[in-house]
Amino acid sequence: MVSVGIIGASGYSGGELLRILLGHEKVEEISACSKSNEGMPYHSVHPNLRGVEGKFIGVDYGELAQKDVVFAATPSGVAMEAATELFGKTKFVDLSADFRLPKEVYERWYGIRHACPELIKEAVYGLPEINREKIRKAKLIANPGCYPTGATLALAPLMKSGAIELERIAIDSKSGSSGAGDEPTPFLHHPEVCASLKHYNLTNHRHMPEIERNLSDIAGKNVVVSFTPMLVPILRGILTTVHAFWKKEIEEDEALALYQKFYRGEPFVRVLSEEERGAIRRTTGGIPSVASIAYTNYCDIGVKVDAHARSVIAMSAIDNLGKGAAGQAVQNMNIMFGFKETTGLELRGFHP
Amino acid sequence: MVSVGIIGASGYSGGELLRILLGHEKVEEISACSKSNEGMPYHSVHPNLRGVEGKFIGVDYGELAQKDVVFAATPSGVAMEAATELFGKTKFVDLSADFRLPKEVYERWYGIRHACPELIKEAVYGLPEINREKIRKAKLIANPGCYPTGATLALAPLMKSGAIELERIAIDSKSGSSGAGDEPTPFLHHPEVCASLKHYNLTNHRHMPEIERNLSDIAGKNVVVSFTPMLVPILRGILTTVHAFWKKEIEEDEALALYQKFYRGEPFVRVLSEEERGAIRRTTGGIPSVASIAYTNYCDIGVKVDAHARSVIAMSAIDNLGKGAAGQAVQNMNIMFGFKETTGLELRGFHP
Amino acid sequence: MVSVGIIGASGYSGGELLRILLGHEKVEEISACSKSNEGMPYHSVHPNLRGVEGKFIGVDYGELAQKDVVFAATPSGVAMEAATELFGKTKFVDLSADFRLPKEVYERWYGIRHACPELIKEAVYGLPEINREKIRKAKLIANPGCYPTGATLALAPLMKSGAIELERIAIDSKSGSSGAGDEPTPFLHHPEVCASLKHYNLTNHRHMPEIERNLSDIAGKNVVVSFTPMLVPILRGILTTVHAFWKKEIEEDEALALYQKFYRGEPFVRVLSEEERGAIRRTTGGIPSVASIAYTNYCDIGVKVDAHARSVIAMSAIDNLGKGAAGQAVQNMNIMFGFKETTGLELRGFHP
Amino acid sequence: MVSVGIIGASGYSGGELLRILLGHEKVEEISACSKSNEGMPYHSVHPNLRGVEGKFIGVDYGELAQKDVVFAATPSGVAMEAATELFGKTKFVDLSADFRLPKEVYERWYGIRHACPELIKEAVYGLPEINREKIRKAKLIANPGCYPTGATLALAPLMKSGAIELERIAIDSKSGSSGAGDEPTPFLHHPEVCASLKHYNLTNHRHMPEIERNLSDIAGKNVVVSFTPMLVPILRGILTTVHAFWKKEIEEDEALALYQKFYRGEPFVRVLSEEERGAIRRTTGGIPSVASIAYTNYCDIGVKVDAHARSVIAMSAIDNLGKGAAGQAVQNMNIMFGFKETTGLELRGFHP
Repeated sequence: MVSVGIIGASGYSGGELLRILLGHEKVEEISACSKSNEGMPYHSVHPNLRGVEGKFIGVDYGELAQKDVVFAATPSGVAMEAATELFGKTKFVDLSADFRLPKEVYERWYGIRHACPELIKEAVYGLPEINREKIRKAKLIANPGCYPTGATLALAPLMKSGAIELERIAIDSKSGSSGAGDEPTPFLHHPEVCASLKHYNLTNHRHMPEIERNLSDIAGKNVVVSFTPMLVPILRGILTTVHAFWKKEIEEDEALALYQKFYRGEPFVRVLSEEERGAIRRTTGGIPSVASIAYTNYCDIGVKVDAHARSVIAMSAIDNLGKGAAGQAVQNMNIMFGFKETTGLELRGFHP
Repeated sequence: MVSVGIIGASGYSGGELLRILLGHEKVEEISACSKSNEGMPYHSVHPNLRGVEGKFIGVDYGELAQKDVVFAATPSGVAMEAATELFGKTKFVDLSADFRLPKEVYERWYGIRHACPELIKEAVYGLPEINREKIRKAKLIANPGCYPTGATLALAPLMKSGAIELERIAIDSKSGSSGAGDEPTPFLHHPEVCASLKHYNLTNHRHMPEIERNLSDIAGKNVVVSFTPMLVPILRGILTTVHAFWKKEIEEDEALALYQKFYRGEPFVRVLSEEERGAIRRTTGGIPSVASIAYTNYCDIGVKVDAHARSVIAMSAIDNLGKGAAGQAVQNMNIMFGFKETTGLELRGFHP
Repeated sequence: MVSVGIIGASGYSGGELLRILLGHEKVEEISACSKSNEGMPYHSVHPNLRGVEGKFIGVDYGELAQKDVVFAATPSGVAMEAATELFGKTKFVDLSADFRLPKEVYERWYGIRHACPELIKEAVYGLPEINREKIRKAKLIANPGCYPTGATLALAPLMKSGAIELERIAIDSKSGSSGAGDEPTPFLHHPEVCASLKHYNLTNHRHMPEIERNLSDIAGKNVVVSFTPMLVPILRGILTTVHAFWKKEIEEDEALALYQKFYRGEPFVRVLSEEERGAIRRTTGGIPSVASIAYTNYCDIGVKVDAHARSVIAMSAIDNLGKGAAGQAVQNMNIMFGFKETTGLELRGFHP
Repeated sequence: MVSVGIIGASGYSGGELLRILLGHEKVEEISACSKSNEGMPYHSVHPNLRGVEGKFIGVDYGELAQKDVVFAATPSGVAMEAATELFGKTKFVDLSADFRLPKEVYERWYGIRHACPELIKEAVYGLPEINREKIRKAKLIANPGCYPTGATLALAPLMKSGAIELERIAIDSKSGSSGAGDEPTPFLHHPEVCASLKHYNLTNHRHMPEIERNLSDIAGKNVVVSFTPMLVPILRGILTTVHAFWKKEIEEDEALALYQKFYRGEPFVRVLSEEERGAIRRTTGGIPSVASIAYTNYCDIGVKVDAHARSVIAMSAIDNLGKGAAGQAVQNMNIMFGFKETTGLELRGFHP
């Protein structure tokens, strides 16, 4: 049993974390911190938690240091300060980007001077499918971004195959609005979203360097991506579509086998095959949809080969707050503490 | 531990039942029957169940009779045949309307000749908040309809109060599309729903007599309702709005106290008070929303008094497949077998 | 040909007004004023207007006084100041509530001290179906609110019939989010709206006294309504559902005839009959839906009688920015200037 | 003034065509044919047309041959039969694919034996921005598919630039559900669409050869595309995102200038520049959204250069029933008859 602290528990990722941890059989005590909502009951911010006793408290690093693990679900720049106080005293899982990138890259893309660059090298990038062994021993986890999780899982098996060109990878990611946070803005105002499709931050989204770093690490070579994020009018879920071009011919069976092998035994990654076609044709075979994984920690993956275009089309579907944030953070906690990796993350999703 | 059969497991209610029972700690064996999908893996119909071993089987009453409990999630007219075979051999929970109404009323509203009218009197109407003691000993449960669940829970505490006129009750219910089943029709074609609001079956919806019967039973007097169901472009959830008119003056505090007393101790009914107002004003105080209860077995209730209009405005929010169908069916099973009533139904819902 | 000024042209109602007037064959010159966007091209705020030359200008009452007509599409309290400057110099159409109610009622419900109470009696309430003759000669139009337009048109024919009880009228109105304006708020943040249904401002919505005043004027007696507004996740449209209870028996044919007679010849009100049922059953007969009238100035009306409940169910569907705001304002302008009433409002809406 | 026939007027494209032509100042007579709805009033299928007199009639080629122009908005294989009867007697605009491709390609991709292959060479591909002069003199127009319209307009200016690799073009197109027609299917059932994102027909969508043919014709070289269509939960609109990779360095200004030059004077193509950024940040600069063009005949285009990825990102937004079908068909008619090209297509779209 572990005691847990959450910094930033009133945001969307923090709330999802709180929900998951409240139902986690190995968690016995939760301190949910929120500066802006200190003293308020949980349900005044997260109405799904009606009936749960509990109030947000202020951030007190002395108390947090007594916890077995602390999560930070905060805007950029906050977790680095918390880490300065807590590193070494408690395990720390940062859902923000503060420890995901080298100092120089972080400072350039996030426009923030890093408060504790010496801790960056202590951080383990928390993508279990790639880094499970390192996560086990980590003191500080840099929990991946939502887009990087989807893009990296969609592409990882191809990276070492030698089959595709590593400098011409197109990644088009469609995200539900919950991925953009709880702050009302003109961009996220319901009338401006509900009947629209709109790309944003083209050529300069902060998740791009994180994606490239991940893929380059796996490939052992420099990987370059052309990344186009888009807001779509759904609540939860990211569908990432990748077009990679052949370096040498690859058949669909072969590509599929590559993925199945890579993710064999993974508890949260499901590679779809042609037989996955819905018995009653609600979807086409082998193609993931966000509805199937919404609210869960699963990542569904599909891979197709277009022999005519000499391309591999890889797709991943994740929940941006689940595998893309809070779910993955709990998966990391489970690994760090030697719990069964699926503990607290058993939810299977819904149909319809 | 119990063994369970589901007839009609490939529909939406059947699939939600299957999902809940797969995670139910007291269920050890499930036979999921589907005539039309016999032999297909679960996930070919319910893609959220990818990774779960299991295939739909055909309906075999001999085998089903060996189960501890059998659920029927079938169109009108099917469960009555199953009940003829299974009654007395196994506990039976019917999610359809076959055992909800007196023979004459059923036959008039559903246009089907009842196959086993003698069993109707054996059936207990499975609304735990009203009938918990009878449910404990029932062999046959008539699981309530989705609209009747929402309307009855919204109105029950008022029924005995003497405060409102019992023959002028307006009930306006807005339902997500998953409540209409999995059969593609012009009415439910995405382009005809997604940007629209449309009432349907006005003055002749089959759930109307069920609502009136429930309310009359509680009031001990004849209750008449003016009921207007509507399809709204969301996936899951019913928001029911009731306008009842004063017989004698009633204050909001008084009305609220009535509700709080009526539902005290209920594990799945949450009466909202003014303090329920979101700390950050995403909702108005004391007013339920479907987002807070979607995917769960909860029913959130709000009550307001309009002293000017001399009306009581009562609202309930339920998930049509949760408290409105499969969730409530499992709640009934839990009561019948003496399990903790919330077993398998612990899911808290989501924000956002 | 007329010259036109719009105060508040960068809001949603102002933008819809600008769009309509740009295509109005009798309008030759438009001055679109916006304090906050002065100097910006139209399309930087209203991207549908790309390709239209034109920039927002500041508010200059001297210049506006030269216009043939000025519209104010502004928050409460602004138009009364403009009217003080412009009344008598130019025709004035106020889309806000500043001139809709008696001084005392306005000040109580809007919490604003009225700047020119003497002008309130000069204002004609701009609901053409009720006040057409007065509108012709008006100098100052109080353009109706969106909910009051829908509720009044749904109920008007019943008001003088003597058939219904005038003090027990339930009005449940469901509105798309564009009705709430362009200001981002937690209540209208996409993730908090897109999968939800939520009532708001129960028992204290500012449109309630406007509805009651309208109905009372038509009935010639005091009318009391129990009004419940709701936000639903669509972009445009209000569906209003009314339950009125019988004073004396009324048959559906009779009710329908009442409506058809009342609205005979009205260019923008369409009373649906049973034969209106979609040939291919996308809707039930005689029931309006918002999809059919979205983006237009039409009001579709349905009326049903529930003989069992002794109620009349009346429904109206309007576009909150069309007949509920800018469309109706232009209809009023057309009447005031003797133009054909449908000029500029010919758009028929869409399917799907 | 022209007289017009529509074959297939009860479908979605046919209905949009009917709506546009009813408001077209050069159209004096319309015969709207529908086999399945013969004798029904227009509004029983298209409820937006309530108030318009008119009934669907059966298909009578003798009568249709008297029209000035006939449109076919029918499933594959129907228009070729109509063309056999009507070619040379009246101008013919086919909204289906029957005359878009060479016989062999058509028969392979559509699985239908072509009834009049000799007429294929008579057909002019009706994309005015590319083929305006040929359209003027055409007797038979093959109106482009929705995806090919979006993809071709997004890419055309790049095709002759020599700047990009022509065999590694990734095209990801997101379409609203109205593009899939009015036939209810499991794939388009509201609960299966409304909270999901799902690709379909990957590597084998019928619009792929049409896109490649268009681009190859413009480039004068063989062009190969990797095309991924997706269904998204909106009603109308297609957003197409293209990633093309550099053959030689190109700067964003240069790319933008290429597009602006290519589309200079086009009445329905709007190339967005960085200054297009919304004054109040509802979108990012230079990026189109479907909301801005929904219901219209406009195509909004954005182009970005990612110098890091050495890619050009081009985007187009069209309405699948507007510029992607009926709107473009009317634009073609206008050109064929020498009418002003925007006649009947003046609608500017909406905000919000």
